[in-house]
Amino acid sequence: MFLAKVYVTLKKSVLDPQGVTVQNALKSLAFQGVEDVRLGKYMEIKLNSKSAKEAEDILKNMCQKLLVNPVIEQYSYDITRIET
Amino acid sequence: MFLAKVYVTLKKSVLDPQGVTVQNALKSLAFQGVEDVRLGKYMEIKLNSKSAKEAEDILKNMCQKLLVNPVIEQYSYDITRIET
Repeated sequence: MFLAKVYVTLKKSVLDPQGVTVQNALKSLAFQGVEDVRLGKYMEIKLNSKSAKEAEDILKNMCQKLLVNPVIEQYSYDITRIET
Repeated sequence: MFLAKVYVTLKKSVLDPQGVTVQNALKSLAFQGVEDVRLGKYMEIKLNSKSAKEAEDILKNMCQKLLVNPVIEQYSYDITRIET
């Protein structure tokens, strides 16, 4: 069994209004020194694959087909083996 | 300047209908071996703090006051120094 952690973020060039909202909310709560906030998605996916290579291939395919919008988003991931 | 990466996930005991929906969508796209999907939030926050300790203190405070709902969510974070 493998645990894939996927981090999906908006590309640098894409505006992030949700992040701006959070930043403003932090400012209104009197937090100092918040220069930038970007929001993204975090996914934990348990995969029943034979090898790390197979898990990685499946994961990449999933990201391209469903989990990530490649027009505006980018992604990265870690895959670790876990005990069932 | 410090970059804080914050990972917010639902607690293990809390149902994640959004994750179940993604899991079903992956199944319907014929992906095999997807045992579990949990969705969370990922945030990148740039902090203008004097030290890593100060950045960490501010970040924890932010999480408790705004970014995380402690009733149903848990969080973890990494803080790294970055060039301005």
